[in-house]
Parts: sequence; C-alpha cells; structure tokens
Amino acid sequence: MSSLNDVKSRALGKLVASKIKQEFPVANLGVLHEPVFRGRELDYTRQCIESGFVSSVGEFVNRFEEQLSLRFEGRSVVATNTGTSALHLALIGAGVNEGDEVIIPAATFVATANAVRMCGAIPHFVDIELSSMALDTQLLEEYLSDLLEPRLEGQFNRQSGRRVSAVVVVHLFGHSAPVKEILGVIDPYALPLVEDAAEAVGSIFHARPVGTSSALAALSFNGNKIVTTGGGGAVVAESAEVARLLKHLSTTAKKPHPWEYFHDMPGFNYRMPNVNAALGCAQLEQLDLFVEAKRSLVGRYASALGDVSDVELVTEPSGGRSNYWLQTILLEQSHDLSAVLGALHEEGIGARPLWKPLHELPMYERCPRSPLGVTESLSGRLINLPSGVGVAA
Amino acid sequence: MSSLNDVKSRALGKLVASKIKQEFPVANLGVLHEPVFRGRELDYTRQCIESGFVSSVGEFVNRFEEQLSLRFEGRSVVATNTGTSALHLALIGAGVNEGDEVIIPAATFVATANAVRMCGAIPHFVDIELSSMALDTQLLEEYLSDLLEPRLEGQFNRQSGRRVSAVVVVHLFGHSAPVKEILGVIDPYALPLVEDAAEAVGSIFHARPVGTSSALAALSFNGNKIVTTGGGGAVVAESAEVARLLKHLSTTAKKPHPWEYFHDMPGFNYRMPNVNAALGCAQLEQLDLFVEAKRSLVGRYASALGDVSDVELVTEPSGGRSNYWLQTILLEQSHDLSAVLGALHEEGIGARPLWKPLHELPMYERCPRSPLGVTESLSGRLINLPSGVGVAA
Repeated sequence: MSSLNDVKSRALGKLVASKIKQEFPVANLGVLHEPVFRGRELDYTRQCIESGFVSSVGEFVNRFEEQLSLRFEGRSVVATNTGTSALHLALIGAGVNEGDEVIIPAATFVATANAVRMCGAIPHFVDIELSSMALDTQLLEEYLSDLLEPRLEGQFNRQSGRRVSAVVVVHLFGHSAPVKEILGVIDPYALPLVEDAAEAVGSIFHARPVGTSSALAALSFNGNKIVTTGGGGAVVAESAEVARLLKHLSTTAKKPHPWEYFHDMPGFNYRMPNVNAALGCAQLEQLDLFVEAKRSLVGRYASALGDVSDVELVTEPSGGRSNYWLQTILLEQSHDLSAVLGALHEEGIGARPLWKPLHELPMYERCPRSPLGVTESLSGRLINLPSGVGVAA
Repeated sequence: MSSLNDVKSRALGKLVASKIKQEFPVANLGVLHEPVFRGRELDYTRQCIESGFVSSVGEFVNRFEEQLSLRFEGRSVVATNTGTSALHLALIGAGVNEGDEVIIPAATFVATANAVRMCGAIPHFVDIELSSMALDTQLLEEYLSDLLEPRLEGQFNRQSGRRVSAVVVVHLFGHSAPVKEILGVIDPYALPLVEDAAEAVGSIFHARPVGTSSALAALSFNGNKIVTTGGGGAVVAESAEVARLLKHLSTTAKKPHPWEYFHDMPGFNYRMPNVNAALGCAQLEQLDLFVEAKRSLVGRYASALGDVSDVELVTEPSGGRSNYWLQTILLEQSHDLSAVLGALHEEGIGARPLWKPLHELPMYERCPRSPLGVTESLSGRLINLPSGVGVAA
C-alpha cells in the first residue's frame, strides 16, 4: 500500500518523465550515459591492429598522453588501464602508505575509496557542502584542527593513532570543487591534495583545466565517461619526476636494457594498452564538441523542468565551465526518492540516485568520519538524468 | 679486454645467430615474440565500436569467456584487464590474505611475485627442478615438512610465524609443470595450488588443457603472449561459486539493481573491456593454428642448432603437448651468458635470458626462501629465442 507521500512522489516522477520525453522526443533516454563514436575510432583502431602494436607499448599511447598533456597545461600524463588504477597511482605519488588514513568525501563513486584501500590505507570520510557537492571547506578546517596531531612523520589522527597522509577532492558530475579554498585549509598541515577528476575531463574552472590546481589528479576514460578508451584512466602530475615514478610503477618496473630483465620496484601492470589509446585519441579529438553538446543539455533540462515544482536543476559553479558529465536535479526533501526513481524507470528514463554514500557500504561502514549530514541529505534528494552526447543530438 | 671465456662465448653467439638466420631467412628475428593478426580482429573491433559497447559490459566479453570455457573443460572463466590482475584474483580465490606467505618459484616473470604482493602477502621462494623448470617436487616435500607447523588457522611458517596460505606453480614458457606430483605434496597440508598458466594458453598435458589440474589458474593475453587482447588475462576456476566471487571483485562489486548503487565488497575494477575481448575472440579462433605454427619452430631450431656443441634445445615434457610459447636453449655452463647474448643481439637476434631470479630483485631480496641453486644455475645458462607465429611463416 502506498503512503500519501509515495503517491505524490510517483506523480512527480511521472511528470518529470513526461516533460523530459517531450523535450527529447527521439533520444535514447533509457541509459544514463552512452558513449558516442563519430570520429576516427575505427580508423585508429585499424591502424593500431595493423601496426602489430596493440599492447602496452605503441604510438597511440604516447600520442594519447601527449594530447592529454596539451589539455592539462603541459603537465606530465601517465595513461592507465582504469580510473581506479590512476587514482591508486596518484595516491602513491602523494605519499600514501599502508596503514595511513586518507580524507575523502563519502559522496563519490566507490572507486575513490577502493583506490585508498588498494594502497592498504583507510578512507576517512568528511562531509560535503551542498553548493559544490565537494568537501566542505569550513567543516574541513574545524575538523582537521580537532583531528590532527603533528609528529615527526607527519600529521596523525589523535584518536586512531594512524598517519593522515592525503586529502582527495572529487569534482562531482564534472563540476569543479573549490580546490583553492581546500588547499588553503590543508597546506598548513603539509597534507597533499589529490584531485579525483574522473568525471571532469574537459571541465574548466577559473580559466584552468580542472585537475591542474593541485600536484596530482586522476582521470577516467571508462565507457560511461565523456570520452572513453573502453577502460582507462590517467594520472596528471605537476612534477615530471613523480610522473616518471608513477609511469614506472604502471608497468612491470623494468629498467631499460636491450635484453636483461631487472625490475627495481613492484610494478602494477596498470599501463593502458595501445588499442585502447587508439580509441582514446579519436575520442579526445571530439572532446570539445562533446563538452558543447553536453553543456547544451542543461538549458534544455531547464526549459523542460523549469515549471515543475519540487525540482531544482544543478548548474555549474560560478567561475566554472563544466563538462556537465551528469545532469542533476535535487528534489524538495519531503519526497520519497525511490518512488520518484521508480516512476521515472517505469517511463523508460534511465535516471539514477547519488551513489550510496560510502560510509553506508558494508566494507566502509567502520571507517572514521565526520558527521555526514549533508551527504546523507543529498543522497535522499539527488537524481542524475540521461546526459550522454547522444541525448543532445 | 675480453677473457678467453668471453671470446669462446661470443663465437658461440655468432655461430648460433648465423645458424638461425640460415634457417629463417625472411623472418623478423629482432623481436622475441610478436603478435599476429590474421583473423577477424578488424571485423570484431569494428562491430564492437559500432555497437557502442566498448567498456566492461558487452557481447564480446561474454563470448570470450564462453570460448575460453569451452577450451578449459567447461570451467568458469573470468576475463580481466591483465594477467597480473588475473593472478591477484586467483590468489584471493585461493584464500590468500594480507600478511600471509605464498610459495612461488623464483624462476618466473616478476608478475607472479607482484600479484602476491598485491594481496598484501609475501612471496616465499622455493627452487625448481631442471627437467620441468617448475617447482622441484622432492625439494618441496622436504622443505614444507621442515617449514610448516599446523595451527587452527592453517599452516604456519615456524620461523616467521606467518601463515603459508597457497602455492603457485608456473608453467614456464608454455611447458606444463608436474601439477599432479605437486598436488600430492601439498594436499596433506590442505594448501591450495594456483596455476600461473600465463604462458601456457593452448598447452596440453596428459590429455587435459594446462590450467585445469588444480582449482584455479591465471592466464595472460598480454601483447607478447600466443594470443592477445592488447592487455588482458583470465581466471579459470573449477568452482562456479568462486568464479562468481572473483567476477564480482573484478568489477566494482555492485549488487544488481535497476538504479541503486550498492557495492558490497571492495572491487578492483579489473574487468576486461569489451573492445579488448573483441580482439581476443578473433585471436582465440586462431589459437590452434598458432600452436601448430609455434610447435613447428622447435623442429626447425633443432635442425638449425643440432650440430652446435654447448647448446641444448629445451623440448616439451613427456606426456605434454606444449604451445612452445618461448623457444629455449641451455648453454653448457662454462659459457658467459652475457657474451653470448651480446653477440646474438649484434647479429639482430632478439634473444633473451631468463628473467632475473626474483630473489635477486631489490624488492624481493629479503623474502624467505629455500636454497635456490637450480634457479641460479639455470639463469646463467638459459636463452629464449625468437618464437612468434610470424617466425614460422
């Protein structure tokens, strides 16, 4: 039996669905984000296969890294086989060791925490602010001041006794987090910042590419991202030396020699294969077009949903030019999210809630954390709407 | 200034090179192992890209797993993005935990040890026998009997106090290890065996596919393997239940639901992308032809090098039908390996020594181990010769 609330929320879902279908009468609305291959994807993958170099060495991997480097202010780029492995390497580059704690938001895709765990470290969740959906600067300042105790080896969590070795900021749905403000808070502690820019490839903030405001950023080229390599990621590093180390770790860490196999570190075999980079080169050539197409969606969603009450469309931060990876609405808080999502799905709209906050997942429920009220509130109100380039077409 | 030994060894290298060039006058001998794309590689990757499914879900990944399953006695197969990640998952499937020790040979590619380390575990090296180049069964029996102490939680290393939780056997260069004998030694300790069959895809031993004689095996489809997916691997599991768990861990471990993101385990994002599986499907169709071509090389190397003294060609074990991934010669032990390799390279032969024994690498030099005399001796005598399908053509 439905409660009165369910009835109201189901009606809202049906209304939103009908408005969206009216706005996008021919688009495939059943999928949240589909990739689009309208460039030289076939041509480049054919060239790659015909060259015989499909694996971890090849011209397209180098080209992909160079093209990315041009987009990231000439920084060093290391292409990897997933966004998770890129984040794992970036955390290593930031100095995260086994047994450390790493400050991350709980409002992010699970890979952010998984990468911390792959370092043998423990996620420590801090709440976000509603406006940027990123780490709350003011809360972070107060929280760290209570939490941290300086020792010779760095900053330590007073309660757990573990070293806190880095902070990860996530540019959620492609919208830039306020990196400068966060750096202002953590710099006095000499805590390094890692940008999880998996969702923000192509986004700009204060005239700079998102992912270049701190020493290290991780990108993703998974199939659901704005540009894809099938599976893939990259580390963007300010320091060429750190990038060399991470590239070395992304291979099997063999020292160059015509025939000897001398591996001087335990490598991860995370390198992006050339055939995936071939796809990526073709996709990167279309990135600016894709950003334009995806940016055009926010206006169309605004016109479709502008007169629907209880629904607020999320727009880019001031000073930002977002890639709008995922279009986002927030429901008035009295609504039942599941009922709205259920109604949207009944109507064929591939809408999604926020990822379940990470402290609510069984493997992370015992991790240390600040109060997470904004995260929990957001997760009860947020819906992502179909956002692929194809929806705009 | 060269020693007398160097002069003799350089002359041997030159002689071997000239014999090889005479036998294979038109082949590209500069590379140890090149992939060959003569099937439907272009067709399948085109289909894959046109389908829009290039990432971790798609028809080719399923097909690749099914085709492999047919080759591995119907066992469950989980396709991964590298051989290293396959081995990592297989070790998890065997029950390896953080802080455990895992018995492995030191005469193997570094990925075998790296995968152990990715579990947070410690490689424990045991010597090989010369005949199979795999773990020495008799030594293993004596060594484990001294080493192990049974406790409630399993077998423990008496000296280090750490649990010993698995044994990895490596089918070196495609030649089957004596798995049955090794199982005979370790079964009384209830130690699980993992087969590192990265190099042995397509090999047969006693009428069974190599990789099916124990509960878990890891395969590799790296660019230097007999068939390639660019980068890739697979776990072959006897238990469908274990395979389901490992497949879950190879993704982001999301529970199925039309829209909710509930991840119940820390997944690794190791899944093979569909575009790589498309390549793999085309390659697998040619595997039997590739095995034939590579098997034909051993006869040609035998006829080329049969009358060269101080050189012995390694052939498949009795009862085996090897894929002859890498053709191998052993030098009479008075030779200087570097001088022979140097001369081969000067003559354009892309020959390689055995991988540096793992206990001689800086990150593994302090790992526990048995005496490793055979490994060390082999590493001073072994040379791999160009072995790709293209050499045979």
